[in-house]
Amino acid sequence: MERRKFLKGAALAGAGSVALAAPAIAQGARQLTIVSTWPRDFPGLGTSAQRLAQRITELSEGRFNVEYFAAGERVGAFDVFDEVASGNSQAYIAADYYWVGKHPGFAYFTSVPFGMTTTEWNAWIKFKGGQEIWDKLSGEFGLKSLPCGATGTQAGGWFNKEIEGPDDFKGLKMRIPGLGGNVMSKLGASTVSLPGGQIYENLVSGSIDATEWVGPYNDYFMKFYEAAKYYYTGGMHEPGGGLAFGMNASWWGELSDWEKDLLTAACYEEHANSYEEAAALNGEYLQRLIDEQGVEVRNFNDDVWDGFGEAAEEVFAEVRDHSALAVEIDDAFQSNISEIGKGMALFEGTFVNQRNRVRNLG
Amino acid sequence: MERRKFLKGAALAGAGSVALAAPAIAQGARQLTIVSTWPRDFPGLGTSAQRLAQRITELSEGRFNVEYFAAGERVGAFDVFDEVASGNSQAYIAADYYWVGKHPGFAYFTSVPFGMTTTEWNAWIKFKGGQEIWDKLSGEFGLKSLPCGATGTQAGGWFNKEIEGPDDFKGLKMRIPGLGGNVMSKLGASTVSLPGGQIYENLVSGSIDATEWVGPYNDYFMKFYEAAKYYYTGGMHEPGGGLAFGMNASWWGELSDWEKDLLTAACYEEHANSYEEAAALNGEYLQRLIDEQGVEVRNFNDDVWDGFGEAAEEVFAEVRDHSALAVEIDDAFQSNISEIGKGMALFEGTFVNQRNRVRNLG
Repeated sequence: MERRKFLKGAALAGAGSVALAAPAIAQGARQLTIVSTWPRDFPGLGTSAQRLAQRITELSEGRFNVEYFAAGERVGAFDVFDEVASGNSQAYIAADYYWVGKHPGFAYFTSVPFGMTTTEWNAWIKFKGGQEIWDKLSGEFGLKSLPCGATGTQAGGWFNKEIEGPDDFKGLKMRIPGLGGNVMSKLGASTVSLPGGQIYENLVSGSIDATEWVGPYNDYFMKFYEAAKYYYTGGMHEPGGGLAFGMNASWWGELSDWEKDLLTAACYEEHANSYEEAAALNGEYLQRLIDEQGVEVRNFNDDVWDGFGEAAEEVFAEVRDHSALAVEIDDAFQSNISEIGKGMALFEGTFVNQRNRVRNLG
Repeated sequence: MERRKFLKGAALAGAGSVALAAPAIAQGARQLTIVSTWPRDFPGLGTSAQRLAQRITELSEGRFNVEYFAAGERVGAFDVFDEVASGNSQAYIAADYYWVGKHPGFAYFTSVPFGMTTTEWNAWIKFKGGQEIWDKLSGEFGLKSLPCGATGTQAGGWFNKEIEGPDDFKGLKMRIPGLGGNVMSKLGASTVSLPGGQIYENLVSGSIDATEWVGPYNDYFMKFYEAAKYYYTGGMHEPGGGLAFGMNASWWGELSDWEKDLLTAACYEEHANSYEEAAALNGEYLQRLIDEQGVEVRNFNDDVWDGFGEAAEEVFAEVRDHSALAVEIDDAFQSNISEIGKGMALFEGTFVNQRNRVRNLG
């Protein structure tokens, strides 16, 4: 797929409604206008959001009249929060850490440095009280969110030089949002948050030196290798977690039990699908990046990871200074990562490390 | 929960229909009789199966008339295959590796030694052709399966002595089904497959010396620690994969697109939920096993893992000797584990190992 094609959506602001393959509108169908932070047909993130919209139509047999707007088709990527909180649209699809300026607690409901993998986060959200505390935070802004997509552990990023120690981040201009960006700032980088559709032009023009995006499957289509050929494996900044189907809370409150069940099932199904799609394709696309584009794959060394760890401690201390709710969220997150992470490490982790050693995988 | 309570279901053979909280039967509702291999209210596996049955009723607004029978309530645990293949019932919930006597390829659609984690398996099944080859195998027996539950990487098992090298399995009588059992046999163990409701009595009576079951959350309720106090972390035998919602293929073929979509969404949702529920609870229940019951947690050492690896190679060679379809399944599985597993190792694996080192988790 051409980059031009999937960046095109971003240029369509004001072009009006571009609905999904229009279903027959069922009698008394409930309007569900979805505004997304992803450009139309964006591989991985955008296609997942569009698949969710389609699935809600199918499963409800058109009893939800779903209209899906990619970034810029109805409002700009970062305007979806206000669009839904105000009730102009019913739901957004976004990474909730885009809203850390409104409250730093939102970071925990996408992904935080040294945080949970997607499976650990799902376990916390669904079975250890995470959803309830997410509801409490979202509720302060008139919103109600459900998990609706996940990328898996994100790549450490694209750099135009090798990173050999934590000092190598000093003076680097990098696109990295959320609390991961704060960690990089502690190490002396100058960080920015840009929506996906604007990263490539900034990297190629030299406005930024480095960027993280997602992982091999998503990143392949971004062509960052044209300006930055060193690609780092799993980073500290976004280990997992998920994306949000953020609804207007009043609208959600009016739904019937069946409507709530249906939206929840559709979101959970797509949440799993998108994570697994990335898992299915990352190995293949990493090999293509190496073979077709000469990308150089690197791991951050232990010194870099130790530097990340020290900086992350400062960042979490700052988050906790924000408010009582920030402390409550951080406490819940950190105690659950210890308990859930230990179980994962002793069982799945022990197996995977031994399997990869014995079978020489990875 | 008392062991007596959740083993009770197994004694109810012939007691007749015990339906789920009876929904109002919608006009023209389609009958969906589900027979399960799990005893009623069995924590983890049984409760997940019952939750799936309930969810199909809810999402379909009763347009599927779901009747759920636990093990022994309509047919015995291991009789569900014939019950559904014959069309007497519409679907079973089981681990498909129970049917390796019918075809060894079924093992790959639950979990095989040194195989995929649940996330890797989901990626293969949904996005790399795994479902299609599963359909081909099931189709030979008049069945069509969907993933409908997962346990995560299973514990190495319960032993009444410490395992210090591969020779320690010689002469051991162990409950371990599937190809994992074949690996143990190569190492000199005498292995049996028993349904969950019959393991405890055999272990306590001394008919078997050791058993594997699932993981801390599921195993906690089985009280195996009364006879075997050494509990091993992640084993080689069932690293992930999933359970099957196995339908009569002719019945599936008659469903409308909406009915197929609805069953698929419900199965996928529960497949994720059950894996994440175990992930949420394993850490907590492991600590309870240690604190309340004095269970001794151990890892298999590298010598044991190397012994497992050599034995597993022999087992896979035997599977491939079975038939062309067995070769096709093994080829697909092994090439996908290399590609998908590599992506997981470089990104999620790199992160998790560094996080656990820096934060001293696990």
